[in-house]
This record gives sequence, structure tokens and C-alpha cells, in this order.
Amino acid sequence: VITDPDTIAAFRLDRSGWDPGGQPLGVIQAESVAQVQETLRQANSDRIPVVVRGAGTGLAGAATAADGELVLDLSKLNRIREISPLDAVAVVEPGVITANVNRAAVQYGLRYAPDPASLEISTIGGNIATNAGGLLCAKYGVTRDWVLGLDVVLADGELISTGGRTRKGVTGYDLTSLFVGSEGTLGVIVGATLRLEPVPAATATVAAYFADVEQAADAAARLPALAAVVELIDPATMRAIDGTSEAFLLVQTDGGAAHAEADAVQEALSSTATRVLRARDSGEAERLVGIRRQALPALERIGRPLIEDIVVPRSRLAEAMRRLSRIGTETGVPIFTFAHAADGNLHPIIVIDRNTVGIPDEAWHAAEQVFALALELGGRLTGEHGVGVLKRRFVGTELGARSHRVQQQLRELFDPHAILNPGKAL
Amino acid sequence: VITDPDTIAAFRLDRSGWDPGGQPLGVIQAESVAQVQETLRQANSDRIPVVVRGAGTGLAGAATAADGELVLDLSKLNRIREISPLDAVAVVEPGVITANVNRAAVQYGLRYAPDPASLEISTIGGNIATNAGGLLCAKYGVTRDWVLGLDVVLADGELISTGGRTRKGVTGYDLTSLFVGSEGTLGVIVGATLRLEPVPAATATVAAYFADVEQAADAAARLPALAAVVELIDPATMRAIDGTSEAFLLVQTDGGAAHAEADAVQEALSSTATRVLRARDSGEAERLVGIRRQALPALERIGRPLIEDIVVPRSRLAEAMRRLSRIGTETGVPIFTFAHAADGNLHPIIVIDRNTVGIPDEAWHAAEQVFALALELGGRLTGEHGVGVLKRRFVGTELGARSHRVQQQLRELFDPHAILNPGKAL
Repeated sequence: VITDPDTIAAFRLDRSGWDPGGQPLGVIQAESVAQVQETLRQANSDRIPVVVRGAGTGLAGAATAADGELVLDLSKLNRIREISPLDAVAVVEPGVITANVNRAAVQYGLRYAPDPASLEISTIGGNIATNAGGLLCAKYGVTRDWVLGLDVVLADGELISTGGRTRKGVTGYDLTSLFVGSEGTLGVIVGATLRLEPVPAATATVAAYFADVEQAADAAARLPALAAVVELIDPATMRAIDGTSEAFLLVQTDGGAAHAEADAVQEALSSTATRVLRARDSGEAERLVGIRRQALPALERIGRPLIEDIVVPRSRLAEAMRRLSRIGTETGVPIFTFAHAADGNLHPIIVIDRNTVGIPDEAWHAAEQVFALALELGGRLTGEHGVGVLKRRFVGTELGARSHRVQQQLRELFDPHAILNPGKAL
Repeated sequence: VITDPDTIAAFRLDRSGWDPGGQPLGVIQAESVAQVQETLRQANSDRIPVVVRGAGTGLAGAATAADGELVLDLSKLNRIREISPLDAVAVVEPGVITANVNRAAVQYGLRYAPDPASLEISTIGGNIATNAGGLLCAKYGVTRDWVLGLDVVLADGELISTGGRTRKGVTGYDLTSLFVGSEGTLGVIVGATLRLEPVPAATATVAAYFADVEQAADAAARLPALAAVVELIDPATMRAIDGTSEAFLLVQTDGGAAHAEADAVQEALSSTATRVLRARDSGEAERLVGIRRQALPALERIGRPLIEDIVVPRSRLAEAMRRLSRIGTETGVPIFTFAHAADGNLHPIIVIDRNTVGIPDEAWHAAEQVFALALELGGRLTGEHGVGVLKRRFVGTELGARSHRVQQQLRELFDPHAILNPGKAL
């Protein structure tokens, strides 16, 4: 138990930029499941709000702790309990860094595919709590698609197990999927059984530049293969990255047919792109992937980026790119957009002055228009970052009143005394 | 509304062999979502139990209707509303025959992968309600992995929508996954948005015979590629199919690298198989697949098959095959087993005398040992058929008391007056 104010301060925020203010009661650094159970039992009986925390890399504020709240840190529950090549599963504790799951699996020729950008710094427990996405989702699915079973401590401290060790299994309701993405509001994830798959035999990389971002979006939506990676960067962001002002599209195919698929992609892109590049070796591939990787650092040189995270159906991607740019122009708030294009998952980045404290009104105003656009185009408020605190007031609009109410009732069922991350997610 | 007793009789049973007896009140054949809503509204206010029905192909009794219950038949809600090649989704009504979803998608080079054996006679609504499996699940996942969004009429008649049209989307809890596999107990599915994927470029087929079923199971668990189909048939079933008494393993690889993967599979199987066959054309592939397809018809010639449906981790498959055979010997009840081997999903078939009415005690006794075996090996009671009526009394053992209670509370939340398929699933 940490009660020293300076140390507590290091555990009260995440990477969302949201500051709830005040001072948490303390931090529990759990070293066993039994300690998590005891913490919840006590907190539930004393009605103390508990904020569960992995590495604090959340982007929506779900891991921020306010005045009078207790932080339950799971980063020391960080053992990989088992990699079973025969069952193609990993059994892990929540505090394991996501990339380490993969490093352990790769020794057996297997991998855990979900690859949020934070995978080297975020924990698998946090990934599960937010149903994290990443670059590979259009082909390989999101975190939820890779979680077979969970150990969860309920609000009153009792431990349950959900799911199992197999992909099939239809006894009872799918509690596993319910806990995935619940942002610490339904229970505390203390163990997970993850599905693994063989590492793809090969990867091929194609990149293309387009004079027109809508043409790039259109090309991304009409690729002739199910690509592993389809990343789109708008001209404004490219200007920040390397001074070019064209739209950039990065496509990676993988598996035994990666190169044949990349040939087809290359040919398809040629019809509208100004330039198409094909990586001839891993160094060239790395250089092309590096362009996408520079997007956020490049914007960080301009100011403080507020990362939005909407989803639209892929058929509306070109329209979304155009309308986002228009929102920027109309509001006078610069919006830079890159996207996991095959998913229709866009990250419109609002860059504000570095010295601004909090989030200025005009940025909120632009963000609201971004959210409204997502819903208008048949999309969703958040694709992979979660609702947290920042998007909470828009949730009802997306879900609809009755569905929202059902979800709140569900939450009350799991947490009757409202101790689990109150004020977050719904 | 059908109240004629003879017609009602045609709607009161499914394919489980379970007969609850008595006479349902009547059958509502809904032709619109509004009629489903009105039916539920009325039934909820009058406390009349409602059994939702698609094609009645269920194997666990979930679609059987007892005395005083109302059957809600959705087979006339059978339009495919949309196939969107750009978004790679199908939007369908629940009464569409599953194979028809695929036939519509294939015109765009896309497919809906889940392939329960019943796909030509079962409805997509029923597939969703049971989270149906099939042959392709180890590589392509189960029905739940293909459902992006649902329209659901709640017990009181109100309509909600869950999920969306995209693979990503983390606003709120995953109600979609909760309804999938809920066997008609949480709401009535009246629409679904399904994910589609490109049809694989190629398929290759390998088959092998083994003197020893455990060696066959072992080979199935250790394949050098992520195969699309891995079907295992035990010697007893093979004897019924074609008089051979060896274990049979059918492997299909698919995608751009199908043939290279099949080469590797062929070589791997050669080390322990007595014979390995590689299909040189689609006719030969069809003949090898046909052997598996004959399994159930062959057993139907011997007597009345009771189809069990357990799951074990793949690493326990060989042990499961051995122990199932031993249960057959010890109880004197003949057990024939075939398996979706890559999933660890076994169908131990108890064949009883054709003239027996109901399920004899010794068959129940053997089935109980089969269920106990599944749980002992770290598996599950049902992989793809559901709990229905038949496995209900074993559910608590698999789930554990607290998890079972949580699920019952969840059910009460969605259906406070217990009108939705009472006596089923939990």
C-alpha cells in the first residue's frame, strides 16, 4: 500500500491528458490474486471507488483516479504462466507488457496478433479492458477476438473464470466478451487465456502516394486482397512528416501468398496513385512503415496532439476524410488525420498549443463535430481507445436511450455499490 | 396466428429428439419486426412463455415448445437486405437459410465462413442464437466472430440495435456477443449485420488413415499449418461408413498458400499414417470430403444417434478419444466419435435402438460420463450445439456456482417475467 503523496501522483493519471484533480487515497500494488480479492472485498464493504491500472497508457481517461479513489495497480502481476504450442494458447497475468506475450509466443512459431501502437508500453490487462485495436484488425480482429477465457475478481472480491482454453464452447452466456472492453467497470481481470496463431510465412509491403486523399481512401477501400495492414495518412500530416503534401497509403499483405497479393495490390493502386513503391527487402519495408510511425511524433513537434478515434464503414472513408478536413477549415482548429483504413478507423488529431492547460473550448467544439460526423456516416464514437471520461457524454447518442439504459443496468448488476471505476465508460 | 392443433404440432419440436409433451398455445408467424414487437409486448404483459423458432434444426432442445407456450416463428423474415462488397458485410433477417447468405456473398467474391453441418437447412437467426460452429472454426472462428451487429426485440417489445457495421467499435459493453449464443433467452434477434471475407483463392485436400486413433488425434493436433478443416473419424465410425477399421483424418488447407501448406501436411502425416491421399482435382477432394459427410448417415443405418458435442483442449484430444472408447466399453453403450479436431470439438455419438422411445437410462449414464470427461480434461460441455434442455443440469458444474448465478441474474435483467424460452439454456 502506497500512501506517500509524491508516489501516488505518479499513479493518478493516464495518457489521455485528462486530469480529474484531487488526490487519490492510495495505491495498492497487488502481487497476488488473493490481494486483489482482499482489496475489492474491503473497498466494496467500505464503498471506496477503485480505479484499476496497468501501465497507465490509456487514451480516454479510464485509468485516471480522482480525489478519494483507490488505485489498484496490477503491473506487478506480470508473469506469463504458460505458452502451450499444442493448444496454441498463452495464459498470462494482466500486468504483462503486450509485446512480451508475443516475444514468448514467437519462440514456438506462434504469435498474439493484436498490435496496438502502445504494445511495447501497455499491459495485456489494459488491452483487454479497452478491447484494444491496432493495425492488423481488419484481417486479424481486435483484442476480443483473441481472448478465450478470463479470471475476473468481481466487485465483492469473489473470483470467477469465464470461457476456456478452446475457441469453441457455448455453455452459458459470453461473459468473456462482456468483460473485454468494459474499462474496469464490471470486474478486475486477473488472468487471461489468449489464442495464438502461427506467425505468417511472409510479409510484403507496398506504399503509394496520391494527389487526392479521397482517391487514396477509395483505393484503400477497394484493395484486391485482404491486407494485414492498410494505413492512410492525409496530406496535412504528410506535410508535417516529410514536407510532401500528398496522401500516403501503406499496405502490407502477409501469409503464404503475401507476395502474389502484394503484386495485385501494387497493380490496383497504380491506376490512381502518383507513385507506387514496393519494398524489395526488409530494410525498405522498415523505411516505408517508418513513415507511418512518424505521424504522431511529427505532430508532437507542432503542438499537443489530442487523438480522436472514430470509426466509419469503409465505404464512407473517402467522405469522412473530406468532411474531417472541412471541419478543420470551418472551425479554424487544425485537424490531421491518419487511419487504419481497412477498418474505417480514423484518428483525427486536433493539435493544440503546447502551452494550453486542459482542452480548450474550440477543440471540444471541433471534436463534437468529429463525433457527430462518425455517427452520421453510420459509424461509432470510438474504435479502439475506449470511452473513458472523454467521450462519456456522447455515449447515449450512439447507443440509443434503451440500449444505454440496459448497459447501465448491467453495470449495476456487476457492481451494485458503484465502486468500480465510477464516472467512466458509460 | 396458427391455432390449428395439427399445424402447431409441426412447430413444437426441434431435431434434438427431446419432446416436452403437451400442446403449445399457438404459433405466430411473424412477417415484420413490428409483429415480433407486438407479440413480445403482449406475451410479456400476459406472462406467456415464448419459444422463438427458425427452422427447428436445433440439437439441444432449445426450440422445443411445451404446454401453454407460444411459438414465435421467424422463418418468414427471410430477406437478405443488403450485401455490401465495399464494407464486406451482409445485412440479413433472421429467417434466411445460412447457405443463402453465402450464395449471395459469393457473387461479390465474398463469403460468410461459418459452416455448421446444417447450413442448408438452418437459419442464420438460429445459428446466431446458438453461436453455431462447424468445420472451419479453428481457422475462421465461430458464428460470434462474424456478427458485427444485431437488431434485437427485448422481452417487453422494445427494439434495440447493438454493435455496428465495422469490426472495430468500443462504445459500451459488447451486447452483440451477449445475445449471440443466448438461445432465445435474452431477446429476439430480428436482424443481423454479418462480416464477410474474400473467398479463399484455393483449397487443397489431404486425407490419411491411421491404425491407431490416438496417433491420428496426435497428428491432428500437431499439423504444420493452420488448416481450414481438420476432421477426425474413429475406427468404429469408419467401420459403419465403409467397413474399414482405421481412424480417418481429413485436412483441408485454403488461401493463396493452400497447396504449399498441403504439401507440408502430407509430409507430416506420412510419418505415422498407414496411407496418405492427396486430392488431385475437385472430384477427388469431393470423394474424400464425402467420407466425412457419410458419418452421421452411416450411424443412422445402425440405430438412432444421440449426438453429443463436447470440447477439450487440443492437447487432450488423443486422451479424449481413448477415454471415450473406454466409456463405451465400460457402460456397454456403443459410442462412435468424430471430431472437428483442430478445435478439440468432439461429437461422441451414442447410438440407441431405433424403436426406443425417449432417451434410455443407460444412454444418459454414458452421456454423463462423457460430460464429466470433457470437464476433467479442461474442456466444455458443448462446443456448438448449445445447452438447450438436454445439458441444462450440467451447466452449473462447468460454470461454477458464482458464475452460474451471475448468468441467471443477467437473464433476469433482460427478462424479468421469465417469458423468453423458460427452462432452457441455464
